[in-house]
Amino acid sequence: MADDRFHVYDTTLRDGAQQEGLNLTVADKLAVARHLDGLGVGFIEGGWPGANPKDTEFFRQARTELDLKHAQLAAFGATRRAGVRAADDPLVAALRESGVPVVTLVAKSHDRHVELALRTTLQENLAMIRDTVSHLRAEGQRVFLDAEHFFDGYKSNPAYALEVIKTAAEAGADVIALCDTNGGMLPEELAEIVLDAAGTSARVGIHCHDDTGCAVANTLAAVKAGATHVQGCANGYGERSGNANLFTVVANLQLKRGFDLVPPDALADMTRVAHAITEVTNVTPNSHAPYVGTSAFAHKAGLHASAIKVDPNLYQHIDPAAVGNDMRMLVSDMAGRASVELKGRELGYELTPEHTRTLVDRVKDLESKGFTFEAADASFELLLRDTVQGERKRHFEVESWRVIVERTKGGDLVSEATVKLHAKGERIVATGEGNGPVNALDKAVRQGLEQLYPELARLELVDYKVRILEGTHGTDAVTRVLITSSDDLAEWATVGVAENIIDASWQALEQAVTYGLLRAGREC
Amino acid sequence: MADDRFHVYDTTLRDGAQQEGLNLTVADKLAVARHLDGLGVGFIEGGWPGANPKDTEFFRQARTELDLKHAQLAAFGATRRAGVRAADDPLVAALRESGVPVVTLVAKSHDRHVELALRTTLQENLAMIRDTVSHLRAEGQRVFLDAEHFFDGYKSNPAYALEVIKTAAEAGADVIALCDTNGGMLPEELAEIVLDAAGTSARVGIHCHDDTGCAVANTLAAVKAGATHVQGCANGYGERSGNANLFTVVANLQLKRGFDLVPPDALADMTRVAHAITEVTNVTPNSHAPYVGTSAFAHKAGLHASAIKVDPNLYQHIDPAAVGNDMRMLVSDMAGRASVELKGRELGYELTPEHTRTLVDRVKDLESKGFTFEAADASFELLLRDTVQGERKRHFEVESWRVIVERTKGGDLVSEATVKLHAKGERIVATGEGNGPVNALDKAVRQGLEQLYPELARLELVDYKVRILEGTHGTDAVTRVLITSSDDLAEWATVGVAENIIDASWQALEQAVTYGLLRAGREC
Repeated sequence: MADDRFHVYDTTLRDGAQQEGLNLTVADKLAVARHLDGLGVGFIEGGWPGANPKDTEFFRQARTELDLKHAQLAAFGATRRAGVRAADDPLVAALRESGVPVVTLVAKSHDRHVELALRTTLQENLAMIRDTVSHLRAEGQRVFLDAEHFFDGYKSNPAYALEVIKTAAEAGADVIALCDTNGGMLPEELAEIVLDAAGTSARVGIHCHDDTGCAVANTLAAVKAGATHVQGCANGYGERSGNANLFTVVANLQLKRGFDLVPPDALADMTRVAHAITEVTNVTPNSHAPYVGTSAFAHKAGLHASAIKVDPNLYQHIDPAAVGNDMRMLVSDMAGRASVELKGRELGYELTPEHTRTLVDRVKDLESKGFTFEAADASFELLLRDTVQGERKRHFEVESWRVIVERTKGGDLVSEATVKLHAKGERIVATGEGNGPVNALDKAVRQGLEQLYPELARLELVDYKVRILEGTHGTDAVTRVLITSSDDLAEWATVGVAENIIDASWQALEQAVTYGLLRAGREC
Repeated sequence: MADDRFHVYDTTLRDGAQQEGLNLTVADKLAVARHLDGLGVGFIEGGWPGANPKDTEFFRQARTELDLKHAQLAAFGATRRAGVRAADDPLVAALRESGVPVVTLVAKSHDRHVELALRTTLQENLAMIRDTVSHLRAEGQRVFLDAEHFFDGYKSNPAYALEVIKTAAEAGADVIALCDTNGGMLPEELAEIVLDAAGTSARVGIHCHDDTGCAVANTLAAVKAGATHVQGCANGYGERSGNANLFTVVANLQLKRGFDLVPPDALADMTRVAHAITEVTNVTPNSHAPYVGTSAFAHKAGLHASAIKVDPNLYQHIDPAAVGNDMRMLVSDMAGRASVELKGRELGYELTPEHTRTLVDRVKDLESKGFTFEAADASFELLLRDTVQGERKRHFEVESWRVIVERTKGGDLVSEATVKLHAKGERIVATGEGNGPVNALDKAVRQGLEQLYPELARLELVDYKVRILEGTHGTDAVTRVLITSSDDLAEWATVGVAENIIDASWQALEQAVTYGLLRAGREC
């Protein structure tokens, strides 16, 4: 069980779920909860039972399907309606009946919200808080309170805002989380307010949104000012600009401020957890996310690469392994010898100075033509192999290819490709149909080679990116295509550049297949 | 000209360009610079002339092609090499010869970096700074200094770090920007160090990275502690987790701290500028970006929506109009009733309420499928005409089209298209050859219609942009194509969306030709 002196409270499944485009099934929510539990968070706010039918179902299933090792499940809900007894309010009943050890009640702490949104009196609002908190405590649940719009409320009427805190604490709420619901606070002003709130006898928490780009900093400032309960969401999910990114908050507090929030080996699993959650939510991962992003420790530029060889800590604020990430080298048009050597070593090759020189020249030349190797490791590796081997060896040679795309008179859209190849002494002619020219070429190639190389059945084109690059000095624009392929075990990326988009796609595709065959252990 | 007492210094084209996957051509860089100038930044760091051939070319073209109204162009570079005179260093020469009013030199301010990365003495490093700064000043340029790894350097050897500042200031550097190069700082500790640095007689600036998710907060904290020069990048571009998002910094300082950094009407254009820059960089926009993200003020239904109707300020930290954004979900500029009416009037049409309703629905529907009308005025106008006329009228009807791209056995690359059309009662079959499938289609169409419509001879396809849009919830990805066409008098843009890239291109092309004919006065 997590240390109760400091709470790491996750609201991915409730506040995070408000993110545009994010729709989680009950099964998704259970999966995310398991990941968060593995990371070591203290509390997982599962949703709003009673108000949201999916959430009611989640809590029902959680009783038997969710075996949390570390975290406690919390249910979110509102204080009783004005003029109704807590014991008679059906939504409050739903909280009781959810079966969870912790209930987090949201309550207004901003006088104008009480008057205009709730349409009741300031006193009645306090009564709503007092009654609901004490009712649920009496029924045996632990209660936290989310003081909604707290900071704006404090600025509007500080006495009332503090009264809300005191009322909730006296009624038995263990933590009052101060919510910057509109997300408009900056750290300094927020800290002053938290300091004042922490001066009451209540235990305060913090719940921030990223509307000013300061959610993480606001959270840390609140902790400094006395908050001992931090709320946030995985990967910074949430409405508008999102909630405070709980992974960033935890990593900062643990690695920079010496807090013991999660077990070190759990923190070392954070990158994997962050990505696993993106698989469940189907939200494209932010490659630039602090700590866990795929680019978070990726270094570009000759300027840095030579120094990294000397001492990685000269250029990294932490050891990426502490959060389960790693330091990748990007080969780019700023590439120097050092980048190429490091990259070669990363891929398992020891390059002679001669090799390195040749390779650097080839990379620079190709990049000036529009190729980019930083996003196409597999193409780089093929180039490296060709350089080391002194020749270009392939599993198949291409005699010709043809792609036809047509909108027929009947209205059908047809994409068909024919390839003519030579492999293992045979001449192969194969045709494929697809949902587009590149898909058709892909199918034709695999159709043609699958008898000789059955492992190609596992190969799949999973991503296709295209970019038109303007020519320089009057030359024509070129098209750059990046293809990501998969064989169920791993993914790799290849690049093609040509004036003609199909030709560029073919280049990337041919390399993708070659690389896939090398991965399967086939020599050329 | 911007106020010199506080500097808004943009390094999108230099530090931002280090972002993984970001590759800007010279034309791209000029375009981004114009956008930034329109926003009102004070300085635009264009790149590293001499070290990066593309940047050398950028500065060369900038002399005649870039007409900055507001910002000053800055060139980035390094201090002279150890043991060489500044006047003899070819990279320093490149800075002089770049022709810009401002040079920003990066110098080591961390003793270990001087020793291990530069491999020289602490004294020589100071001499390198002194010599290079004073040399460039004597040659007539204004000099800023980027104190690289300043915060880590201060923690390692504070006296030396401060010595670097003093040396640079005494030699004539107007600003010493303190760089958190590894991005590992948190705001409080950073502010203490900035305070100490600002206590020297130098004018200090701040340059932060987002490795702890605190780049914006760090920048604001530095300003509080005495920095009067903020560096950052558009949309938070940059290596690893990116640089401080300059848009967020400017909006925070201006809207929350009362700074006058950019003209208010420029700030009200910030959302458009942010998005326009993503079109140039071809980096997928972050819909959750503070202030400018499409979701930044999007409210999900339920708890908040009813209250928003009462008073928007109850749920928004600022009026989105202040930054040119708006409070709606998944609705672009075009799909609000007011926007559509205005746009219609702008194009010379008076829309009835019925028309407006229908058009808004069509636009929303198409945009949910991936169409974007912001960047395709001509497509919007055709949609508008169809709505007003109550039917779709065209100069030609398409019976079928076919595109063939092949790499022949002889090694030639052939792209050929055949179109079968009906126009003015005739059936036309035409074939065109091109340097790619879209070019071939374009030629076929014009070949086919040029007899009936000679004005098509002036029509030219001048730009082609393609983007793959990820599907949502398991649907397949679609391709969006934007074509810009010209008839020597003006340019117009059309959009096509389909799973198949050729089909998407055809849609945009067909509309481009139709629009061109309408422009030439041809009725359908």
